[in-house]
Amino acid sequence: MADTATDPRPVCVLGVGLIGGSLLRALGPGGAFGWNRSATTARAATADGADVSTDLPAVLHRAAESDALVVVAVPLPALGAVLDAVAGHAPGVALTDVVSVKAPVLAAVRARGLGARFVGGHPMAGTADSGWAATDPELFRGATWLVAADDDADPDTWARVAGLAGRCGSRVVAAASPEHDAAVARISHLPHVLAEALAVSGAAGGALALALAAGSFRDGTRVAGTAPDLVRAICEPNRDALLPVLEECLLLLTAARDSLRDDDELGALVDGGHLARAAYEASAAGTAEPVVVVPGTPGWLETARGAGAEGRAVRLG
Amino acid sequence: MADTATDPRPVCVLGVGLIGGSLLRALGPGGAFGWNRSATTARAATADGADVSTDLPAVLHRAAESDALVVVAVPLPALGAVLDAVAGHAPGVALTDVVSVKAPVLAAVRARGLGARFVGGHPMAGTADSGWAATDPELFRGATWLVAADDDADPDTWARVAGLAGRCGSRVVAAASPEHDAAVARISHLPHVLAEALAVSGAAGGALALALAAGSFRDGTRVAGTAPDLVRAICEPNRDALLPVLEECLLLLTAARDSLRDDDELGALVDGGHLARAAYEASAAGTAEPVVVVPGTPGWLETARGAGAEGRAVRLG
Repeated sequence: MADTATDPRPVCVLGVGLIGGSLLRALGPGGAFGWNRSATTARAATADGADVSTDLPAVLHRAAESDALVVVAVPLPALGAVLDAVAGHAPGVALTDVVSVKAPVLAAVRARGLGARFVGGHPMAGTADSGWAATDPELFRGATWLVAADDDADPDTWARVAGLAGRCGSRVVAAASPEHDAAVARISHLPHVLAEALAVSGAAGGALALALAAGSFRDGTRVAGTAPDLVRAICEPNRDALLPVLEECLLLLTAARDSLRDDDELGALVDGGHLARAAYEASAAGTAEPVVVVPGTPGWLETARGAGAEGRAVRLG
Repeated sequence: MADTATDPRPVCVLGVGLIGGSLLRALGPGGAFGWNRSATTARAATADGADVSTDLPAVLHRAAESDALVVVAVPLPALGAVLDAVAGHAPGVALTDVVSVKAPVLAAVRARGLGARFVGGHPMAGTADSGWAATDPELFRGATWLVAADDDADPDTWARVAGLAGRCGSRVVAAASPEHDAAVARISHLPHVLAEALAVSGAAGGALALALAAGSFRDGTRVAGTAPDLVRAICEPNRDALLPVLEECLLLLTAARDSLRDDDELGALVDGGHLARAAYEASAAGTAEPVVVVPGTPGWLETARGAGAEGRAVRLG
């Protein structure tokens, strides 16, 4: 297993938008290089001191020769084409990604025979902005970085991905890909859908309603400022997990509506929401020690997933 | 009409919780005094230099003698008892309030024969905290303060309420009470309901979901941290305005659910939400000059309400 603190193998980032570009900047030019389709972006990144090319085959050959950890950081619609190139030019590389769903990415990777050295990832960080200009080397500091703990995960690659997250200042939480997708439907994709609905409902009140809007509306609609194409690219590929969560939320809201209509009160939702927010605040303040995981030792995947199910981080032992 | 900058008449605040207490502190002890039911709170306020008594009849007699502007700053459930006391001890005073709904307050005031010198108000400011300990003399700075422009509003009292808002650093927006209630159902009460539902939906994902939660969940659930009794006291009295807004939001979410289920996409909601958030941001950045209103001159109420309907502030001329 790699000693991640001294691992001399570089990181290769494919796509230097907000997440990929911030990752490249967090690692610095010495140990990381990248590719981007847009020459304008590649030039901007190069001008800022990053090692970024627009020649994908050349970048992939360099990754294969240096046994780089390749990080796929393109939006999901571009994933297939990039994975095709990896399969064609560097089929044996260690591979991870930063896409916001994990099961569809895992399926796409396996369909191209790239599964043996693939471990999915998802840094839970971002802003409503996008592109190289929005990148920030500190974007991942203090964030949670999901490292997928799927059956048959390669221990060496898993350690490298977890080590990468640690180098960027993130805490590592482990879960199987479908568990991740079910969780983010609740805490990332549903918030997007509700924010859009709140924004529409508020603006339907016209200029007076918007002039009276204060903190609750501002915060509740913040992520509706995200570019629509990005919202769709984040939420729609997780349809199978998002649909039942959206159904569940509709039931909660319908019950509150019925209670308000029939009994003049919002009912159980108010106390339930307050308790739930308190549980989140306690979780966010989480002081539990990380669980030590030694990739490759017996039961390591179960240990990692068990920690994630309890909301606890893991650290490499 | 009063020249509010030099108006020597004091302000009397009934109830020194978050809003009333912050108002008392914003005005300073020279020109304002108050009442609070809880002796503990009154002692805390007095220790901080405020002029607060627990003797409601005495405070109301002092208000009547000094022609104070009486600000009712108790939660809606306590409103009736306080208005009864005003009717009994100081029926002729100039009266306003800071309660989060306006039509029910107006009805309660008129039912007690106190309408002639009443002008409702609602500073759009607050936090998830409450009580004297949470008060802040700067709470209203930069906030919007709704001043009710109902038919037959007394021009002198209207100018005093608008002047009070200005002294606290707020911008004044005018609307008739029912228009205010319809607007806040959209931009204040619906955000509370959606935040509660999002919090419940997220926590239903267990510890893993809460551990992965980042900015969108944190901001989208912030107001679910408000005390449940306060949420109910804010939202439920506005039932008649909130119910159709909640229905409308349910239709938006149901359409998105249907589209996701049948066509694998979220549909019109995403673009609509983004446009709506952009409209809000443009409104919040609002650079339009305030409309000058001279209370008591012909058409002044229509001018004030017209400005509010356009999302524009007013200033006293």
